[in-house]
Amino acid sequence: MNQNDRREIQKPAVTRRDFFKTAAVSAGAMAVAGLAVKVEAAEAAGPAAAPAAAAGAPAAAAPGGKTLPEVMKAAREKLYPKCRVCPECDGQACSGEVPGMGGIGTGKAFRNNLEALASYGLAMKTFHDVKKPDTSITLFGEKLSMPILSAITGGVTYNMGLKGKVTEEEYMEGVIGGCIAAGTLGFAADGIEDPVTTYATRLAVIKKFGGKGLAQVKPRAQVDIIERMHMVEASGAKAIFIDIDSAGRAARCKPPQIVEPKTPAQLRELVKATKLPFVIKGVMTPEEAQLAVDVGAAGIVVSNHGGRVLDHTPGTAKVLPAIAKAVKGRTLVFADGGVRYGSDVLKLLALGANAVLVGRPVLRGSVGGGAEGVKLVLEKMRSELVDAMVLTGTASVKKVSRSILA
Amino acid sequence: MNQNDRREIQKPAVTRRDFFKTAAVSAGAMAVAGLAVKVEAAEAAGPAAAPAAAAGAPAAAAPGGKTLPEVMKAAREKLYPKCRVCPECDGQACSGEVPGMGGIGTGKAFRNNLEALASYGLAMKTFHDVKKPDTSITLFGEKLSMPILSAITGGVTYNMGLKGKVTEEEYMEGVIGGCIAAGTLGFAADGIEDPVTTYATRLAVIKKFGGKGLAQVKPRAQVDIIERMHMVEASGAKAIFIDIDSAGRAARCKPPQIVEPKTPAQLRELVKATKLPFVIKGVMTPEEAQLAVDVGAAGIVVSNHGGRVLDHTPGTAKVLPAIAKAVKGRTLVFADGGVRYGSDVLKLLALGANAVLVGRPVLRGSVGGGAEGVKLVLEKMRSELVDAMVLTGTASVKKVSRSILA
Amino acid sequence: MNQNDRREIQKPAVTRRDFFKTAAVSAGAMAVAGLAVKVEAAEAAGPAAAPAAAAGAPAAAAPGGKTLPEVMKAAREKLYPKCRVCPECDGQACSGEVPGMGGIGTGKAFRNNLEALASYGLAMKTFHDVKKPDTSITLFGEKLSMPILSAITGGVTYNMGLKGKVTEEEYMEGVIGGCIAAGTLGFAADGIEDPVTTYATRLAVIKKFGGKGLAQVKPRAQVDIIERMHMVEASGAKAIFIDIDSAGRAARCKPPQIVEPKTPAQLRELVKATKLPFVIKGVMTPEEAQLAVDVGAAGIVVSNHGGRVLDHTPGTAKVLPAIAKAVKGRTLVFADGGVRYGSDVLKLLALGANAVLVGRPVLRGSVGGGAEGVKLVLEKMRSELVDAMVLTGTASVKKVSRSILA
Amino acid sequence: MNQNDRREIQKPAVTRRDFFKTAAVSAGAMAVAGLAVKVEAAEAAGPAAAPAAAAGAPAAAAPGGKTLPEVMKAAREKLYPKCRVCPECDGQACSGEVPGMGGIGTGKAFRNNLEALASYGLAMKTFHDVKKPDTSITLFGEKLSMPILSAITGGVTYNMGLKGKVTEEEYMEGVIGGCIAAGTLGFAADGIEDPVTTYATRLAVIKKFGGKGLAQVKPRAQVDIIERMHMVEASGAKAIFIDIDSAGRAARCKPPQIVEPKTPAQLRELVKATKLPFVIKGVMTPEEAQLAVDVGAAGIVVSNHGGRVLDHTPGTAKVLPAIAKAVKGRTLVFADGGVRYGSDVLKLLALGANAVLVGRPVLRGSVGGGAEGVKLVLEKMRSELVDAMVLTGTASVKKVSRSILA
Repeated sequence: MNQNDRREIQKPAVTRRDFFKTAAVSAGAMAVAGLAVKVEAAEAAGPAAAPAAAAGAPAAAAPGGKTLPEVMKAAREKLYPKCRVCPECDGQACSGEVPGMGGIGTGKAFRNNLEALASYGLAMKTFHDVKKPDTSITLFGEKLSMPILSAITGGVTYNMGLKGKVTEEEYMEGVIGGCIAAGTLGFAADGIEDPVTTYATRLAVIKKFGGKGLAQVKPRAQVDIIERMHMVEASGAKAIFIDIDSAGRAARCKPPQIVEPKTPAQLRELVKATKLPFVIKGVMTPEEAQLAVDVGAAGIVVSNHGGRVLDHTPGTAKVLPAIAKAVKGRTLVFADGGVRYGSDVLKLLALGANAVLVGRPVLRGSVGGGAEGVKLVLEKMRSELVDAMVLTGTASVKKVSRSILA
Repeated sequence: MNQNDRREIQKPAVTRRDFFKTAAVSAGAMAVAGLAVKVEAAEAAGPAAAPAAAAGAPAAAAPGGKTLPEVMKAAREKLYPKCRVCPECDGQACSGEVPGMGGIGTGKAFRNNLEALASYGLAMKTFHDVKKPDTSITLFGEKLSMPILSAITGGVTYNMGLKGKVTEEEYMEGVIGGCIAAGTLGFAADGIEDPVTTYATRLAVIKKFGGKGLAQVKPRAQVDIIERMHMVEASGAKAIFIDIDSAGRAARCKPPQIVEPKTPAQLRELVKATKLPFVIKGVMTPEEAQLAVDVGAAGIVVSNHGGRVLDHTPGTAKVLPAIAKAVKGRTLVFADGGVRYGSDVLKLLALGANAVLVGRPVLRGSVGGGAEGVKLVLEKMRSELVDAMVLTGTASVKKVSRSILA
Repeated sequence: MNQNDRREIQKPAVTRRDFFKTAAVSAGAMAVAGLAVKVEAAEAAGPAAAPAAAAGAPAAAAPGGKTLPEVMKAAREKLYPKCRVCPECDGQACSGEVPGMGGIGTGKAFRNNLEALASYGLAMKTFHDVKKPDTSITLFGEKLSMPILSAITGGVTYNMGLKGKVTEEEYMEGVIGGCIAAGTLGFAADGIEDPVTTYATRLAVIKKFGGKGLAQVKPRAQVDIIERMHMVEASGAKAIFIDIDSAGRAARCKPPQIVEPKTPAQLRELVKATKLPFVIKGVMTPEEAQLAVDVGAAGIVVSNHGGRVLDHTPGTAKVLPAIAKAVKGRTLVFADGGVRYGSDVLKLLALGANAVLVGRPVLRGSVGGGAEGVKLVLEKMRSELVDAMVLTGTASVKKVSRSILA
Repeated sequence: MNQNDRREIQKPAVTRRDFFKTAAVSAGAMAVAGLAVKVEAAEAAGPAAAPAAAAGAPAAAAPGGKTLPEVMKAAREKLYPKCRVCPECDGQACSGEVPGMGGIGTGKAFRNNLEALASYGLAMKTFHDVKKPDTSITLFGEKLSMPILSAITGGVTYNMGLKGKVTEEEYMEGVIGGCIAAGTLGFAADGIEDPVTTYATRLAVIKKFGGKGLAQVKPRAQVDIIERMHMVEASGAKAIFIDIDSAGRAARCKPPQIVEPKTPAQLRELVKATKLPFVIKGVMTPEEAQLAVDVGAAGIVVSNHGGRVLDHTPGTAKVLPAIAKAVKGRTLVFADGGVRYGSDVLKLLALGANAVLVGRPVLRGSVGGGAEGVKLVLEKMRSELVDAMVLTGTASVKKVSRSILA
């Protein structure tokens, strides 16, 4: 390691040294038990005192002058204790906290996402001429700077505990505006108990940004979904995603707030009911991926809902290869779950994803720094992606070889 | 994660945040080492101060008005330090505490139960129309609301340290009454040194509840078992279980308190000695499962006695598939060991169980809230089971596909 | 778990609850990371204050009236900080402490012994009539109560830090006398720098006990070994063991204190030089086990010297099966390393050992309670062995089926 | 363990007991989570108060009188908090700290090096006559006392935080002078942003020591490399290494400070441009190892840059066997990454390396004790190597059998 390594990644204003370090250790499905100690440190630090250090965050200031560590510090002050903004966001501290930021039950499904990603190594390759790799993709007719979207997040009050601190609209402007600033797209979310008027408010943000955004709907009654689809079309959004993995509450929902699993026939009806690309989020098996193709879905998202709906669901990086093998090329394949670094993005692309969604880090960016914060989060991730592409000889995100995985 | 996730699982009055969080991490046989930190927290908290948080417990109040977190808090205050009512009941804090609540020796057999369960993932499936899955079964002629029974627990004084706080009769009324209130059945237990009169007192509770209960006998001398069988028949109980896994003390027992392993001939004699269904608890190999069928047993319980009799016995979820393959359909297959969530129940059904037994959580429910507490514990578990069934496309607990395991 | 479980293992006067509990977790090669927390507790407790709890120790008092927990408490007070007498003796606290009680370097070889043992499960079997299993064996013409010997331990001053507290002779009387009291045999040890006169002093203890003991020699120059062999013969000891695994210092020894690896020809010469059975300790491969048979050794000890001579040596329980398969029946097969419970003994027998050696627990027994302490340690272990035999249907230690391993 | 074990490894002046011990646990890819606790202790101790204990360090004083523990204590006082000089240097405390001493991102690549090494056991063998094994090799025409070189380290200011404490020249004199004193060779490093004049200063140290050293160049523009090659030739250095694994910054470098991956044609040009042996560092696949042979490289270093350039690169000990199989005998094979003990050196030799490079331990030796400190570090490692060779029956480092790995 040489003196000039200093520019490899710029030093954060607040270093991770301020937290006790822990073993992120894991290969295959592995134990990360000691991480609890980190959590203990985070808990002890309390909401205000603790400096929120973003892992390896470059201190490059946005126009507004904030650095990413400053954004994370601000996020922690607002989110604590709903989110502790841990040095490594790994689902330990918040396990079982649903609503909240954690994985359901034991939190294993959340951790599975991280462990599945960590189970893949990267084969370093340097005998080539890939110096300036291309991270751009075209998605839904939009040219994007990177194959990274925001994930679908919401619930400013109930999940994030931000009542009186951040409004749903401010939050959404941060996500969607920040994604645009970074050259990509963010999501307007739907909530099971939201009246249509609330949904309209969110879509207004997309409209305000010239339609540069994506929208999600809950797996509601068919008629209610179709009503919302028309609203989405009017907003100018580029595509509609249904998070069918929200169906777990089917037996407990009280009308009119119904969510339900959907039969292929119902899904086909929805595909036909909109002129927009219709993407199904929550596909975790090759069988359902094939069904999604059969009903005409424009894409699928391999997702276990951030580990928040069914404990012990596998990590998405574990099931992605078989799913991509089954349907890649016939429908778009997205993936989310546990993406923290650019190297995670590269792994998911190598495993078969066309693009990935990033949830909690973007959420913290928006809460801590608005659009500027989200932009910093995404640009750091893109920068890491570029470095990883150089060191694996990957010229373009549009064609990532499985052989880079070790 | 959206705003309306808030009803997915109701927020506990006392959140798990009050404990340090830890890695429940494990896949295959996995390490959960860091959990010790949690225990440290629990120990530090002490018996009275510590709020006892039930993992993801719904705060739904029973008629008496208690919430499940309140029940768990009360349980902790009574049981500490025999049971710390840890955020995750995982055998760490109590390892080696026999008598007490722990696993014997290193406690590995206790943890094996949890690790074996955690080694199975769940394949999320949402392209279907299973909205209101059926959790009912018929057992020993009784229609039950769920495939979940209490496990066989007792020893209010020696195992639980409740002398002067809870009587054996109060405890048993909680278990049996609570099970009935939740639509299922609980157990009256036998203890090696109990005189027949004590056993009679317990069976009186079953009789009081109209025979809606199950009874267990220790592997005593044949004549002593048969004497007790007649008492059980008189109580109206629906079946007799022998926990043959208590035989480890055979070499150390002093007459008249004999326990012993049983030959197939002895077991056959016992089957013939009662008109009630006779179930053998403690079967851990396909060979003995087959022998149980041969001698005419109505059922078997795949059980390692909660990890309390022989260190390093495998987790029950590990040995269950081979056992179910050998005898399912020819005898009833029950399983216990480490069941904490509805998803655990679903896994055991997928692995071949007809129904499962739940020990420590029900025990805490009874100690902390009597029948009301037990009912809350069981209803939470049934609710989680329903959600897991929806998200795996499982219409009925009577037919659970192995394919939902990932 | 029933009320009467209370006699299954008698409650220690000082419970393990006084230490933070930790994950002994492991299956196959497993992580026991969290154990560090226990160590922390042990360290914090300090030498005097900390109650030394023996894991699951029966409180049965010896004639002198001491209970095993009391013996362990006394051992801790004397041995701290050389040995912390941790609740689980697992090589965490003392890793790298050579001389001392730990494993060399990273301590991995020490831990490998424990992890290898823990990687085997036990198949519970109760459909049989094994009520009073036979634990006796005949070894070197002696009828022993159990297949458990002391291991070879010494170095009261340097390894144990007992200068001014316990003399070498007192220590040895505890080991050899305690083993005799428990119906088995203990070892008189040799030390590299000991003059012949010191060795003579130790052998005098064996002579004092009527020759009921075993003796070990270092892999010295041939002539020096043969000189000591004659002394051993004169003491009446039943066999001579050479701990050839001490040869690591060959390049650093200064004459006359030479140790060295031995060629088969040299070993053959030693076998012929004594009328006593000659056993080679430190065999870790089937190839060398075969060579031991070839040179006429009466037995071998599968041992990595307690993990104290070569880091990263495998656990003995891992290599034992292949070694036993190669030579069992043609020479005696002993094993040591990480034996803490009777179930560990049963596992090693199932894996092919004729008998096992127990080091650190016996050492603590002698330091904390002399012969009485050693007897308590061994009798607890024998009692656990009996229970494990009943629950696996093992009638005799002379014939243990591999099928009891799960 | 006997009294005379005391000389096996001399007792450090400051023992590891002063730190809480932790699980180094791991076999295959394993969890070392609990290690965090150690780190916590290290952090709490602070820079000045904490005694810096070298793991198992012999207290043998160098001529100047310093012992290795004293050197490590001095290193810690200077390096803290850039390096905590942890009892086990395992990448936990410093994870993500680039620049600094840690692994990039999650730090997994750093830890992979240690875990890969730990995944190999050592088969103890003692039936032979290897008493004084030969550790010497001849490399680049130089007879070396051991197959251990310094690794390539630099960045006194940015990576080590030593501004005002240690100059780059002092640091380099420590490394190169210490290596010579121990009978081996050290490296003069290149830094991306160093002007040629700085590089010249470093090479002057090699010249001062009569050319007894090695030099490294960054993967700069071809012309810049060739300019530096001529400077290296003039210094008398024995070989030139290019750390092509520094190419990750290719997309972010600003001219004239260019680094870049290299095509085989470019590498061939470099080989031809110097009369010195040209070695390529950063080879992690058999394919690129073969290419290195094709272009005429004198050697390769299997290295992931200490885990500092691409997260999740495999441990070098994991990829080494396939690489050695592909090219051993046709080019020199070096390896680095996680070498802490002589047994690690022996493992890498058994896996196919001709020699190994040691980074962080040598770095701490130089900072804490200059040439004397480096010599102590290397001699301890050689001594451990000798012991491990005796106990595996390895007569010479030039021929190490794969069969010693268990």
